[in-house]
Amino acid sequence: MAPPSPARQRKRGHDPESVLSTAVGVFNERGYDGTSMEDLARALGVTKSAIYYHVPGKEQLLARALDRALDGLFAVVTDERAASGPAIDRLEWAVRQSVRILVDRLPYVTLLLRVRGNSRTEQAALERRREFDRFISHLVKEAAAEGSIRPDVDPALVTRLLFGTVNSITEWYRPARGASADDLADALLKMTFTGLRV
Amino acid sequence: MAPPSPARQRKRGHDPESVLSTAVGVFNERGYDGTSMEDLARALGVTKSAIYYHVPGKEQLLARALDRALDGLFAVVTDERAASGPAIDRLEWAVRQSVRILVDRLPYVTLLLRVRGNSRTEQAALERRREFDRFISHLVKEAAAEGSIRPDVDPALVTRLLFGTVNSITEWYRPARGASADDLADALLKMTFTGLRV
Repeated sequence: MAPPSPARQRKRGHDPESVLSTAVGVFNERGYDGTSMEDLARALGVTKSAIYYHVPGKEQLLARALDRALDGLFAVVTDERAASGPAIDRLEWAVRQSVRILVDRLPYVTLLLRVRGNSRTEQAALERRREFDRFISHLVKEAAAEGSIRPDVDPALVTRLLFGTVNSITEWYRPARGASADDLADALLKMTFTGLRV
Repeated sequence: MAPPSPARQRKRGHDPESVLSTAVGVFNERGYDGTSMEDLARALGVTKSAIYYHVPGKEQLLARALDRALDGLFAVVTDERAASGPAIDRLEWAVRQSVRILVDRLPYVTLLLRVRGNSRTEQAALERRREFDRFISHLVKEAAAEGSIRPDVDPALVTRLLFGTVNSITEWYRPARGASADDLADALLKMTFTGLRV
């Protein structure tokens, strides 16, 4: 079967971008392992060959989706605002940016957080995620060393709990009827950096 | 096939309790929907009929497992320490108890947090979980009303973020090589109630 003509692709929204965003939705709903190319074709309302026109297979769709989340997070790591100034301020900034990326790329980050390492693609994504975690962990240790984080909590535990709070947003946040990314980041930073108690 | 004799049950650890704890492990690893009675029999090293001797079916195992998590959480709701004193102290106490239950019943709470409502058993568990969330949400509102929580964050958002932090512990905490439940609760309460910044 011939691939759909460009006009028909646009009409049905089956450009590479909409194939990717539909696939991510189906992966999150059914689980990546539980999703077949048939499932994706059904969700897109096209034949399997129409999908293969855009992408070599299911794992490449997963790789592209995970890169979208990870590229967002690594833009935080390499930003110059993460490189100078008091570590506590850089950490706050990095947490704020992480919340923004999570909200902007919600289905992609949700998928990333569910990856368990069942394939090479997943293992590579986990390795990049660990690299991001090390970057945050290093910022927390720097902030502890400069004396701007309370000394009575283990920095490793702080890193876990702080990003536990950020990542848990994927469990309940719905952009259409929720706070904006900035309101969400404000509330999260107030709770974790200044505390809830008056 | 006849059920195993009591002596053999003990020898292989196939009392109702070890059937339940093995099942929860397999559910968390493979997903409840992806687990068959064959999978459970293999994990226990027995025949399917040996399992049916203890439990009518897979969904009853799920119900028992979810009850173990939920009964722990509802012991917090009905404890007299949740009923009197400043709301902020009762909230802190409830969060601390929730962390303890999560650590003590880690695989059961992990399973509970993954429930999506695909069966009556799951729907009933979700309803009880929502009831617990309402209890916490009410405590947060009381603490806000008494003026002991900072007024510049939405109490609904505080509830989400606070229990997001607690629940995220299931994603990384391993009892064998981690902090104790009390150390974990201390760190979490310091971060969220008093703040990380010195």
